[in-house]
Amino acid sequence: MTVTDIARRSYDHGFRLDPIVRSLLDTDFYKLLMLQMIHHIHGDVDATFSLINRTKSVRLAEIIDEDELRAQLDYARSVRFAKKELIWLAGNSFYGKQQMFKPDFLAWLADFQLPEYDLRKVDGQYELRFEGPWTHTTMWEIPALAIVNELRSRAALAGRGKFALDVVYARAKARLWDKVERLRQLPDLAISDFGTRRRHGFLWQRWCVEALKEGLGDRFIGTSNVLLAMDADLEAIGTNAHELPMVAGALATSDAALAHAPYQVLEDWQQHYNGNLLIALPDAFGSTAFLRNAPDWLARWTGFRPDSAPPIEGGEQIIRWWEERGVDPRTKLIIFSDGMDIDTIEETYHHFHGRVRMSFGWGTNLTNDFRDCDPEGQAGLEPISLVCKVTQANGRPAVKLSDNPAKSTGDPEEVARYLRVFGGQDRVASAVEV
Amino acid sequence: MTVTDIARRSYDHGFRLDPIVRSLLDTDFYKLLMLQMIHHIHGDVDATFSLINRTKSVRLAEIIDEDELRAQLDYARSVRFAKKELIWLAGNSFYGKQQMFKPDFLAWLADFQLPEYDLRKVDGQYELRFEGPWTHTTMWEIPALAIVNELRSRAALAGRGKFALDVVYARAKARLWDKVERLRQLPDLAISDFGTRRRHGFLWQRWCVEALKEGLGDRFIGTSNVLLAMDADLEAIGTNAHELPMVAGALATSDAALAHAPYQVLEDWQQHYNGNLLIALPDAFGSTAFLRNAPDWLARWTGFRPDSAPPIEGGEQIIRWWEERGVDPRTKLIIFSDGMDIDTIEETYHHFHGRVRMSFGWGTNLTNDFRDCDPEGQAGLEPISLVCKVTQANGRPAVKLSDNPAKSTGDPEEVARYLRVFGGQDRVASAVEV
Repeated sequence: MTVTDIARRSYDHGFRLDPIVRSLLDTDFYKLLMLQMIHHIHGDVDATFSLINRTKSVRLAEIIDEDELRAQLDYARSVRFAKKELIWLAGNSFYGKQQMFKPDFLAWLADFQLPEYDLRKVDGQYELRFEGPWTHTTMWEIPALAIVNELRSRAALAGRGKFALDVVYARAKARLWDKVERLRQLPDLAISDFGTRRRHGFLWQRWCVEALKEGLGDRFIGTSNVLLAMDADLEAIGTNAHELPMVAGALATSDAALAHAPYQVLEDWQQHYNGNLLIALPDAFGSTAFLRNAPDWLARWTGFRPDSAPPIEGGEQIIRWWEERGVDPRTKLIIFSDGMDIDTIEETYHHFHGRVRMSFGWGTNLTNDFRDCDPEGQAGLEPISLVCKVTQANGRPAVKLSDNPAKSTGDPEEVARYLRVFGGQDRVASAVEV
Repeated sequence: MTVTDIARRSYDHGFRLDPIVRSLLDTDFYKLLMLQMIHHIHGDVDATFSLINRTKSVRLAEIIDEDELRAQLDYARSVRFAKKELIWLAGNSFYGKQQMFKPDFLAWLADFQLPEYDLRKVDGQYELRFEGPWTHTTMWEIPALAIVNELRSRAALAGRGKFALDVVYARAKARLWDKVERLRQLPDLAISDFGTRRRHGFLWQRWCVEALKEGLGDRFIGTSNVLLAMDADLEAIGTNAHELPMVAGALATSDAALAHAPYQVLEDWQQHYNGNLLIALPDAFGSTAFLRNAPDWLARWTGFRPDSAPPIEGGEQIIRWWEERGVDPRTKLIIFSDGMDIDTIEETYHHFHGRVRMSFGWGTNLTNDFRDCDPEGQAGLEPISLVCKVTQANGRPAVKLSDNPAKSTGDPEEVARYLRVFGGQDRVASAVEV
């Protein structure tokens, strides 16, 4: 008997849109943690987020149909938190802690909707901006990136035959499993999925996450994707992001206030969270300046997430900082999450093994490694460096310096001012591939 | 909406057997061509076929459960030709010819059933024999091999996780497509699937065949599997096999009659078939003797299928034979089908390109190349050299010498007699891997 679900087939006939973002939990966990704090203490701040394609050679507006992009963004705006999602956020423990999200915040989430967007084509790229209350615009970052990346994947594969498509995914699966087998050789590995924003597609990310769950067992500690964490009973992973110091910097009314901004963010954070959520991101305005001026109490935090320095140099700098403060690095945690892939994970693991606790946040090279997988040649499946950054807060320009000048964002004059305030010491330019 | 076909799921709960051979067309096309001739002129001959595992190190009786094997063989015995299958055999053209199969033969097929089998375990191997009329036992060869090979694959993968299994097939697909991409570089390639008997499994063979159809277009000329040819609207490919000269040899009552037997088979064949079906298999008792004593009229046949000599040496020998008879090899066809894989196909293609028409019958290395695909190590997925050969005809022993002594079959004393009659010249021993 040939089994065809006739109702399903009939639905497929009339298919208008295959939505990419179908749940507001299909985002990174840290967005929710940050949102609760923003909602609590910065409900009055406006913040503008803008899509930035650092890979200029890929002319997204010539690849992705504008109507399709609008349809996906509009669909995402139609999505609300489902009741069971809010119940799960309320009832689940995160990082070992119950009731991470407060009832008033969850009640507010129940009515949450992604705000309007502003989309136009400029010089072969999309200018996609989100303006309005920070409490709302911040939530666009991940879905906007996931939508644009998946539409690009879909465009790259449109018109491929059934078997050619099967081979694309077969190759990508074979490649990921080869990486899994290498990761299995690292007995104390702790690794998580950080690949939502750059994923090839939602279903592919789900495959990758479920494959790591089966292939790595306890060494796979979870996923930053809240929806996948819920569906697969994994830990939701994440703490905070550059937008916190970037907005704090933009709102600072003097150079002295700007210099203090990154630490003010940490003070606010530890008012809201504790334990393993006390992870500092040192590189928003350069890690060297950040560590030099950091308060001693920061040495009591769980650890750091260096996100733009080369991992070994960045890790060594942090270990020296702990040692200078009489802290044993073996009790501390470093999370490596900048463009990691199997080679750099292995190298970093072996370099630091036994000297510090570490974990890896594996992003683009986990969920979007389709290089050379297309049987018909380079279809445009290689990942690009697409980000969605805060560019203004309350009308004032926001800046990120980072440890890698290639990852800086912001108006050049403001960047120059930030470099005067923080110094540009020890920044290392590296190609940003992902 | 989660779509579950409840009736199907309920059926799956009660699943007793996943049959491997579900159609009597799930066999090689040449069996049907030979069967029509056997039915016509050898209806009174008894022939015994026996399973022979040349890869002794793989102890099949310790891998495959006897009850499962019996259940599969019994299921195959329960299968009859479906009406639509007989209609297709009657109405389809084969090798450009209408009505290849005569109405009386098709009428006889309508009642056909695979005969009884004799199964026992001896020293870690299965002794599986089919005794009775040649018209019936011959039809066991392909389903018996397909069943044993697929049961071995299933045993190898039993208990693997969902993702580990997904990766096994992803790797095998990626590997096959890499081969397809190399084959695409050969503009005048003509290649067909000969992989039914050694396939990993039916569904996998179907994937391979459909992938070649999409990937190679016209260069993929068809499949030996009649069912897949019907289902995918491909040409059914195949002519004749060693069993014809082997039975003729066994029935020969004198050394002179034995020496003439291989040519008698060809005379019978050309009474039944013509055009591109006039392909001679030279190596049953050694190609050198066969060609030396071959009648001149054989040079008018379409070509040869050397099946055990190294392809380049075997092809050169045949080309010399044509040239000695004043025949231009460029008008002739050689079909290479012995253990071919991508490297030997490329090498043979380039060696003979422009000098002779050629095509490739790609078997085990097409439909059962899972070497190193198992994420948990060597699971027993590597192909083995399993054959099902005629061993007796009317109670007299059957022998195959082949161009490769490692592929000989038969009682040693009889082999010695055949070597006296045909000579052992130019036989080259090579490891038989598949």
